[in-house]
Formats: sequence, C-alpha cells, structure tokens
Amino acid sequence: MKIDDNFYMKLAIDEAWKFQLLTYPNPAVGCVVVKAGKLLAIEAHKEAGLSHAEVNALKTAFLTQEPNSLLKVLEKSSEIHDFLIKNHNGFFEDCEIYTTLEPCNHHGKTPSCAKLLSILKPKRLIIGLIDTNKIASGGIKTLESENIDVTTKVLEKECENLLLPFKSWQNKTSIFFKMAQTLNGSIDGQISSQRAKLYVHTLRDKIDLLMIGGNSVRVDKPILDTRYVKGREPDVFIYSKNKAFSQAIPLFKVPNRKVIISDDLFKLLDYKFVMVEGVYTLLDILKDKLDFVVLIISPKIRNGVNSVNELNIDFEILHENYLGDEKIVFLKRRA
Amino acid sequence: MKIDDNFYMKLAIDEAWKFQLLTYPNPAVGCVVVKAGKLLAIEAHKEAGLSHAEVNALKTAFLTQEPNSLLKVLEKSSEIHDFLIKNHNGFFEDCEIYTTLEPCNHHGKTPSCAKLLSILKPKRLIIGLIDTNKIASGGIKTLESENIDVTTKVLEKECENLLLPFKSWQNKTSIFFKMAQTLNGSIDGQISSQRAKLYVHTLRDKIDLLMIGGNSVRVDKPILDTRYVKGREPDVFIYSKNKAFSQAIPLFKVPNRKVIISDDLFKLLDYKFVMVEGVYTLLDILKDKLDFVVLIISPKIRNGVNSVNELNIDFEILHENYLGDEKIVFLKRRA
Repeated sequence: MKIDDNFYMKLAIDEAWKFQLLTYPNPAVGCVVVKAGKLLAIEAHKEAGLSHAEVNALKTAFLTQEPNSLLKVLEKSSEIHDFLIKNHNGFFEDCEIYTTLEPCNHHGKTPSCAKLLSILKPKRLIIGLIDTNKIASGGIKTLESENIDVTTKVLEKECENLLLPFKSWQNKTSIFFKMAQTLNGSIDGQISSQRAKLYVHTLRDKIDLLMIGGNSVRVDKPILDTRYVKGREPDVFIYSKNKAFSQAIPLFKVPNRKVIISDDLFKLLDYKFVMVEGVYTLLDILKDKLDFVVLIISPKIRNGVNSVNELNIDFEILHENYLGDEKIVFLKRRA
Repeated sequence: MKIDDNFYMKLAIDEAWKFQLLTYPNPAVGCVVVKAGKLLAIEAHKEAGLSHAEVNALKTAFLTQEPNSLLKVLEKSSEIHDFLIKNHNGFFEDCEIYTTLEPCNHHGKTPSCAKLLSILKPKRLIIGLIDTNKIASGGIKTLESENIDVTTKVLEKECENLLLPFKSWQNKTSIFFKMAQTLNGSIDGQISSQRAKLYVHTLRDKIDLLMIGGNSVRVDKPILDTRYVKGREPDVFIYSKNKAFSQAIPLFKVPNRKVIISDDLFKLLDYKFVMVEGVYTLLDILKDKLDFVVLIISPKIRNGVNSVNELNIDFEILHENYLGDEKIVFLKRRA
C-alpha cells in the first residue's frame, strides 16, 4: 500500500466519520499531523462548540513532544489556540497537516483555524475539499499569504461524501432515514443491540424532529425518547391519515415535546434536521426527499417480516462504521 | 485516535485482508515497518510462491531510502533476502516491525523470515498471533536468541480472525459459502457488477471444488468457469437427488473438469478447498459444515426472490472489503 498524501488524508476522513452527524450543525472534519515523516495525530471535530479537528490534532501532536505540558488539561478551543501561539517554538515548522476541509477562516464559537495555522507556520497544508461556505471560507488565502505551501483536492470525492450531511442541513431542512435490519433484510422483532439503541438515542438528541409511521406507533407503542443518553427529546411527527391515537402511548407523555399527527409532509419543513425512523413503506413515500440513509445492519439471518417490497433504489455507500458487532452504513441515493 | 502498537497492527491486518483466500494454501499475513517513528511500509503476502509479507515490507521500507537501488527490480523472495542481507548496512536497526503472524522459521518455498529478521536486527518485532503450525513456528525463539525485542499478542483476536480461513484448510477440507445479494437480501436476477464477477472467478481459480445446487444448474445453465481471469477450472459438485441433467448445459463442456452429481456430502471430503455458490436452501443444508461465509452485497434495494426463509443464524463479521461500489463481507458463524 502506498503511503502518500491519499493515505494520510484517508486516516483523517475515517476519523471524521466516527463523529458523523454528531457534530450537527457543524461539518464532520478530520485532521492528521505528520512531523518530519512521523505520524503524530489523527483527530476529528466531535461536537459543535468543542474544538475543531485541526485544534485537536495540533494539541495531540504537540503533546507527543511535551506530554506533561499544561496544554494537556486545556479543553477550551480559545485556550488551546492561545497556548499553542505562545509556546509552539517552531514545533510545527516541519509538519505536514492534512485536513478534510479547508480550515475555517472566521472567528465563530472558536477562533479561526486558518489564522492559528498561519501563525504556527507548518511546512505544508494538505486540504481535501475547498470550503464553499461563504462565512467560513478563505482559509487557503490566509495560509498562502503567509507563504505556507497548500495542496488541495486530495481525495476530494471522499471528502465531499464526508461533507454531504453538512451540505444537506446548511441551507435547508435535512431529512435522513434510519432503519435497522438483519443481514437478509428482516426487520422483525428486536434486531439491534443495546449499543445500537444508544447510538439511535444519540442521533435523536441531535435532531429537531423524529418522523415515524402511524402504524408503527399503534403497534409498537414507542417512547421515542433519549433516555439512554439523557439528551434533548425531539418533537415527533406521526405520519398518518387517521388522527386518532391513544394518548396512553408513551411517546405522548414525554415532557417538552410537541407531537404532530399529519399526512402533510410539507410540515417537515418547519424543522431543520429530521430523522425518519421507519421501514420500507415510509422509505417508499419519502425516497425522493431523503438526503441520506443510515442503515444499521445486525449480522444475523432471521426469518421474519421481510423487505419484500416494490422498491427499486440504487445507493452509493458513503461510509461504514462498526458499532460493536453491528455496522452503521451511510448511504446516498444514486441519481 | 491513539497511534500505538494497535494502530500499526491494524494497518497490517487490513492490508492482509485484501488478499484473503488469494494466498491459499498459505495464510494471509500483513506487515508494517516503522523506522524511527516514520511509517515506511504496509505490505501483505499476495499469493503462494510469492514473497512473504515481511519480505515485501522490508523491501518497500528499504526502497524509501534508496529508491533506485537494484532491489527495486528483484521479485524472487530468495533474491530479496540475499540483497537485504548483503546491503542492509544497519538500516533496520531503528525499525519496529509489525507482523500479524509470527514470522516463519522454516525454509519452504522461500527462505525463513525469522532468519532474515534475525540478521537485519530490527529494534523490535511486534507480533499479532503466535504460530501454532508445527512446520513454520519457532520464529520468536530465533529472534530472541539474537536479542531482538519481541512483543506478542497485539490485536490477537483480530489476527486470529484473519487466520481463520488458513486454519480451516490447514488440516482438513475447508468449505466456505459464497453468496451475492442486494442490501435488502434480494437474490434475484443480475445482482453483481463485472468487478464482483471477476472476484468470483479469482476465487474459483483458487478452489478445488465448486458446489452448486441442482436447481440452479437446471434454471441458470451456468458455465462456472474462470474465463475472466484465465484460471484453473475447478471440479463441480452438483448437489441433487435427481441425477439427470442435460449435457448441453455449458458447465459440462469445460475441459479438464470432473463433474460430480450427488446428494452425498461426504464426497466433498475428497477435496481440500470447496466453495459453495448458492442461496438460502444450500446454506440451510450446509450451515453446520461451513468454515466461513463470503457475502457480496450490492448497495441497492430490489423487489425480487427474497431471503424469506426459516433460517436463524448469528454471525460475526470478520472483515469487510470494498469491491468497487460493492462490499465483500467475511462472516463466521457464532457458536
């Protein structure tokens, strides 16, 4: 296997995918630091408000040299910025820094990464995707004005795939479909492990609205909360022509939640980030409206209600993560 | 992400999986070379008779220093061994070498890797799995007798999974099941891409015997050859009670092939390496006899003959490779 720019960029991409969707409303970004040929850091942005990928990677890289430095206990992005600016002492001058997205050029919740890098003066910046976000872009210009060597468009397609969810929620309502099944497409009974359930609760904590089919609500009587992660409870959209539901169904009793019962999909657009938890019926109804699909696959074969259906959809696999013994597959519909 | 022994061992494991089954009758092995902290080589054993993973990795690592060395054109394992012994000049003394399996200690088709390493004297050997093969084992002893620091059992479970196919064919007939399906478990019509078909032909070139159900033969009238890779044509075992088949079916016309028509599974044991190409019926019949499963998944949803069945099997995902847009999933049945 060739150990080149693509190799290191792939490490950054794979790390970023581990936090895909969890960075909402920020993009998932990964960063790798290689100092004089030595791989020192592979980090990602983990959650909005926390440090950007670049800052995490610069911190990890610097700590390999000074493991007992004060930097170790700093968590706030602005504090890490300040520390590195004062103490870098040329440490990054023989570093090559790989980032899946052009470093941000604006001071938002955290100071600008491009500004920080232009002070630390690494030997080279390798960027997967040029940022087209008007607010954050311009990082390359900032870097090049400090004579830092910048290479762009390394694994650009893969970096674009990584950014697809972010692009979907940037300017409009983002709608994704979450489904769990066995290897053979069975969706019956308890499919997922406790760990997968925890993941779903983590996703529910990020979204504004959870959409589910009326039949599922009547049959499964779900809570649809985030109790495993003690998160925010999303509003619920029950897709149903028939508006009559027993108020004893637990989902109605979750505090601070609005429940909409409707068959008007237009109402989804009142929200920013929508997860549909469903099976093939809802997938069929929504297939032209979905930005991406999150499929949880449990590696077993089961007899059960199956995916026999009239659907005919081609996907591209954007990425896959392990979730314990199961897989999360991120899919994009092919045009 | 932590950059430690596990990280580098994982790179070696993933590289080895790319050649899983293709090294038959040898084990799939991966090797990584890190020199003074710099990652120089990620290589694998690719095919029986070709150089072992360690030799490939040592060669790649050495060439990073002397890219125009004569070594570049050497392909034969014994020649690479000789070159490195004569020209290493202490190059490997600050190297850490990761190998998924204890380096072989015997002079087989190629000279012993443990012997070679004991001459090159790397700083440290990191070994995933200790070899229990009586012929090849003893590498650690050879290395330690030359005072080379040896660390063992790094990602041992993952290295064991990598070795599972090898262990299955080492002392008995190895039987694996190959199946192709869509995301939702549909097995109808043309599922796989040309690239997946090429992969299947590559597998057929490795096996001794291809088993298929009588019904598939009657309906699909297959050739079951290796024309895409111009390989060896495996013998065919048609599993069928009814022995009458039209001799016009193309598989009967492939030269140098024996075709067995039988429902006596005991006959499989006359062969060493058997691939079953089937769907759920054969999987049900053979499920207790299979060493592993190779599942090719095409990322689409299709209406079609589906995996509705009475099976109830739990698997562990050993590994997954991309095959263009599709996935190859290696599965082991859970006990």
